[in-house]
Amino acid sequence: MSKRKPPHGRRPAPAGPRRPPVKSARRGGGEPGSLWLYGAHPVLAALANPARPCRRLLLSAEAARRHGAAVAVARPGDTPVPETATPQKFAETLPDGAVHQGLAMLTAPLAEAALADILANAPGSENAAGAPRRRLIVVLDQVTDPHNVGAILRSAAAFGAEAVLAPSRHAAPESGALAKAASGALEHVTYARVGNLARCLEDLKAAGFWCLGLAGDAEKTLAEADPGGPLALVLGAEGDGLRRLTRESCDILARLPTREPISALNVSTAAAVALYQLLAV
Amino acid sequence: MSKRKPPHGRRPAPAGPRRPPVKSARRGGGEPGSLWLYGAHPVLAALANPARPCRRLLLSAEAARRHGAAVAVARPGDTPVPETATPQKFAETLPDGAVHQGLAMLTAPLAEAALADILANAPGSENAAGAPRRRLIVVLDQVTDPHNVGAILRSAAAFGAEAVLAPSRHAAPESGALAKAASGALEHVTYARVGNLARCLEDLKAAGFWCLGLAGDAEKTLAEADPGGPLALVLGAEGDGLRRLTRESCDILARLPTREPISALNVSTAAAVALYQLLAV
Repeated sequence: MSKRKPPHGRRPAPAGPRRPPVKSARRGGGEPGSLWLYGAHPVLAALANPARPCRRLLLSAEAARRHGAAVAVARPGDTPVPETATPQKFAETLPDGAVHQGLAMLTAPLAEAALADILANAPGSENAAGAPRRRLIVVLDQVTDPHNVGAILRSAAAFGAEAVLAPSRHAAPESGALAKAASGALEHVTYARVGNLARCLEDLKAAGFWCLGLAGDAEKTLAEADPGGPLALVLGAEGDGLRRLTRESCDILARLPTREPISALNVSTAAAVALYQLLAV
Repeated sequence: MSKRKPPHGRRPAPAGPRRPPVKSARRGGGEPGSLWLYGAHPVLAALANPARPCRRLLLSAEAARRHGAAVAVARPGDTPVPETATPQKFAETLPDGAVHQGLAMLTAPLAEAALADILANAPGSENAAGAPRRRLIVVLDQVTDPHNVGAILRSAAAFGAEAVLAPSRHAAPESGALAKAASGALEHVTYARVGNLARCLEDLKAAGFWCLGLAGDAEKTLAEADPGGPLALVLGAEGDGLRRLTRESCDILARLPTREPISALNVSTAAAVALYQLLAV
């Protein structure tokens, strides 16, 4: 594995990749593991993120034609030479059924952000007029399916949430499947693991965030219950919902206005609808 | 295959399964194919739908303990005797990776509804006070992924849309994967294939529906563009969006208020957010 540090200082300012300062404890630790990202959106977004090392890059002949220019712009000079790969090569390298679209990149997980850094890192203003952007952080309580976590990252990016937090245990690690579902958003929204969820919620409250848990049995709808201001949206695992301690740690519980008999939404769908309500309605 | 007709006349009125009258041409046709449904929500909802034939029912020992009473209530007397199945039996019977939760049911696709029947079948009133429910039909333009179609059915049920329509060609057929993603909603929301999408939109307009297409490049947001009243929400395939003819057939184009650089949502996520805006905001 290459020991080359990721290149810094080429970060595009406004709509570019965001990542809070690296936690020094982690930086000083052992060489992190490798993972393969695949698919056009995840790989092109990863190449455009200067914090993302590129150890190998596989391109099909077709992908080289379609995306070669974008690759050269994203990594001028310092990319490992792209390897032209056959369908068989992709099949040998990637998990079964991976929809790679002719692009795959061997990389390492991003350095994890500490909660204090995320809280200190207020997002930029919303528009040219400088209207402040509402601070919104998503907190996942035992949401372990990588497709769901990836889809939540994608919606977080689309509606403007700044981070997705999950406990170190019972969370989906960065993976090709997660990055594919995130469709590039893994490079733009901070995804961080925290030691203890209840403690994390206390820290968020201390920083001025309301902790609002989504629960199907809550009395008020999200629109009715939203207090305004900085908010942590807390989502539980599909089926089981929020754990008791997480529920008790929330300031507010709210539900989405769904109807019987199919009233429970998939957690990533619920996240998208809630983010829309909180950030765009 | 059994020629037994599905039992009728046990349909619970308010929150029960809905399915418009059967098209006689199809009814008189050949015996339709079989398919396996699997997973707790899809199988229990299918058992509770009297229009759904049950040819075989596999239960794990654990599922028999947990769901035996619900099965007996849903199909008193006339169910094929549930077969106790081992994990190996499920693996031999179902597609690789099927998350069956110990339940699988061999059935047939539901008889397809004709558009005229759907249009004639106004949904019930919204609440005890009798407030009318907004009529909303989802139209899919070449959305072929069964997980996406299933997830859209689930959101349609949760927010109260009455039907999902798709062209006969380039649509996902009823399948175990689609039903699993729909989490029971396939039994509650009409899913019908139509011959020609542009013609279907004309028929919807003639019946008093606005045809509103979701398009990322539209000028107005959905909230700004919603004209009120009966509405057909038209969604295109992820990536390609609406086809030109479909786009031209819409009365209105609108976008969701997402932000760069990850502004495109997965089609099932976009559907959920749009249904929330149109039916619940």
